[in-house]
Amino acid sequence: MKTWLNVPSDSDFSIYNLPFGIFDTGDGQPRAGMAIGDHIVDLVAAAEHGLFGKKRFYKKLFAQPVLNEFIALGKPTTNRIRRRVQTWLCLPDTPEHASQILADRRSARMHLPVRIGDYTDFYSSIEHATNVGKMFRPDNPLLPNWRWIPVGYHGRSSSIVVDGTPIRRPHGQILPPGQDTPVFSASRRMDFELEMAFIVGKETALGETIPVEKAEEYIFGLVLFNDWSARDIQRWEYVPLGPFLGKNFGSSISPWIVTLEALKPFRVKGPKQNPAPLDYLRTTGSRNYDIELEVGLSPQNSNETVICHSNMRYLYWSMAQQLAHHTVNGCNIKVGDMMASGTISGPTKDSFGSMLELSWSGQQPIQLQDGSTRTFIQDGDTITMRGWAQKGDVRVGFGQVGGTVLG
Amino acid sequence: MKTWLNVPSDSDFSIYNLPFGIFDTGDGQPRAGMAIGDHIVDLVAAAEHGLFGKKRFYKKLFAQPVLNEFIALGKPTTNRIRRRVQTWLCLPDTPEHASQILADRRSARMHLPVRIGDYTDFYSSIEHATNVGKMFRPDNPLLPNWRWIPVGYHGRSSSIVVDGTPIRRPHGQILPPGQDTPVFSASRRMDFELEMAFIVGKETALGETIPVEKAEEYIFGLVLFNDWSARDIQRWEYVPLGPFLGKNFGSSISPWIVTLEALKPFRVKGPKQNPAPLDYLRTTGSRNYDIELEVGLSPQNSNETVICHSNMRYLYWSMAQQLAHHTVNGCNIKVGDMMASGTISGPTKDSFGSMLELSWSGQQPIQLQDGSTRTFIQDGDTITMRGWAQKGDVRVGFGQVGGTVLG
Repeated sequence: MKTWLNVPSDSDFSIYNLPFGIFDTGDGQPRAGMAIGDHIVDLVAAAEHGLFGKKRFYKKLFAQPVLNEFIALGKPTTNRIRRRVQTWLCLPDTPEHASQILADRRSARMHLPVRIGDYTDFYSSIEHATNVGKMFRPDNPLLPNWRWIPVGYHGRSSSIVVDGTPIRRPHGQILPPGQDTPVFSASRRMDFELEMAFIVGKETALGETIPVEKAEEYIFGLVLFNDWSARDIQRWEYVPLGPFLGKNFGSSISPWIVTLEALKPFRVKGPKQNPAPLDYLRTTGSRNYDIELEVGLSPQNSNETVICHSNMRYLYWSMAQQLAHHTVNGCNIKVGDMMASGTISGPTKDSFGSMLELSWSGQQPIQLQDGSTRTFIQDGDTITMRGWAQKGDVRVGFGQVGGTVLG
Repeated sequence: MKTWLNVPSDSDFSIYNLPFGIFDTGDGQPRAGMAIGDHIVDLVAAAEHGLFGKKRFYKKLFAQPVLNEFIALGKPTTNRIRRRVQTWLCLPDTPEHASQILADRRSARMHLPVRIGDYTDFYSSIEHATNVGKMFRPDNPLLPNWRWIPVGYHGRSSSIVVDGTPIRRPHGQILPPGQDTPVFSASRRMDFELEMAFIVGKETALGETIPVEKAEEYIFGLVLFNDWSARDIQRWEYVPLGPFLGKNFGSSISPWIVTLEALKPFRVKGPKQNPAPLDYLRTTGSRNYDIELEVGLSPQNSNETVICHSNMRYLYWSMAQQLAHHTVNGCNIKVGDMMASGTISGPTKDSFGSMLELSWSGQQPIQLQDGSTRTFIQDGDTITMRGWAQKGDVRVGFGQVGGTVLG
């Protein structure tokens, strides 16, 4: 495929990608767009120029500040819109009105792409679960249920923010080592978690279940996800009902939703599952995705050091299995719900997806390029996550999710 | 106060109450109303007849299928509307248009009163936490953090339903006693949890905290809450990240939101807290509420047996403390968020708020009036919760939340 637009060859937003997002150009009018190279296809303008037919309908749809209604139309429609824009971008010559339909991506402001209903966080990397288990429960690292259940829990959707939003270091209760009375303090163990999240594209009714083989029909697309964590708050609060204030002060996502269709060429088999899962979780074929991931840490006024290289393919439990499990009891899902993978760690030390693991609970400081070291995140540090899939010339990427920690 | 309407003296919906809800009268037009005796004040009709001024504004506001926008106007407005209706109901004579403004409550269909954003479930009864702890962790019933933290976790908002909605018994993974391989099965330990929930009336920004002394300004009102639970699914899945599929197949609420203002006469001191909470949780005055609670179980085609009498005043942690804790890390809240108390058990066996506690994990069957017994809920059983506060002639009640378990 070849477009008349000038798209840098290393762009995440190639003609094969065309992810959806919500942007504005400083006019305070958030609207739907699709990223292509350094540009955005303004879908309101595209509708206005008749690209999709039914002008009024599509103009109104894309002029909304979230994509929920568009996504709810279902894959036949959302895929048709994506293919239509692809065709338009591949016309033999620059089409009339191109300049009215394209916006400058570099100067646009991005918003949360959907109104998130419920947010669920899974725990699907066996390397991460084992690493954390070794630190929190040395005698019992991987709990007996882990290889049977795609373990997950409910998180807070109100505090999910988009790339670039600063995150304030949380205060809370912390139990100092060796003491039995907690103190109130700013977190001293501020961390990131490298995750991917999918956005639900099709709703179910209460009582309905989703068969694992059909689960991907319910997934619209993916974003990068940083599940900011305050390890000391988490450690004191998490028994017996799970993480709460150690997590819900903020989570960050990348602004462009990469569709499952764009990621199709990058499907791979996941790790062998042993024991074999129960029937309702049993899948065939390639259900994982080969998506390279990296995390950079930039101290205030200093250059970035990439501190983690990982890959989404490492996940033990696939998104299809997560969704089949989530609904096997009849729990209903809604368009715009977000489900994150849990920290994606790989087998090697440089692939661990959190500071907790990289510094092994603070015992092994990480060396940065400017000569400084880190065990956990310091005030002023910026964490930036990137993700991309590539096969020959075909590159489909996520851009980035970044956030600076403020004291 | 005396109204020209005939309100039964034992009605939960006295002239002192006037709770808000969303109803329809079979016309498929859900709209806002206030309960009074066996009637509903139709707020759209009341606005139409000029009761509140600004006719168009209030008609449009109350014609919505949820109360979020109304609640977001803030207590000065919502209290003014409530007082205005109270005054109208206490006019010396039946006012003109009364019959157009009143609807029959007994034949109305009730809806969820708000669009729920995030839902949080606390664990604030020391009797419940101790009882459950004894069964799940005999060596360690009340965990060390419990007396320091109003422990809570995030739940699923999509599956919260209104009074009268049947609940399907969930399937899921269960670990049979003495085995190490789970099976897939319908839950064999289906339970209720007697809770109260409050609805957030005022939003905060990410990073903002709510001082405990001001927390009640952020609470619009309360409903009864049944946190249906599948104990066997919960037990296998809950470590280390907390309950998930054992809870998220459904929760039920009563349809009428009783305002904090209506509950003011029933404020009481809570249990003494020992050790003294950290500063951000320290309160003075009466922060608990004296609300009688009961749970009835009706087998299919048989009469109800009341199996639990409890009271909201037993809660160790108050709503103000829950909300101060929830936001102390900067977590933001939104209008319509729902926060439940956790099971409200009292000190005596007949006040335990779940079958798990009443039957002591199935070891002590409960005797019903029809001669049958129960350890957990059977298919066809209906669970009904009721709540009311009373002082002399002043009664302020919640009506009920009921649900039948289907196989």
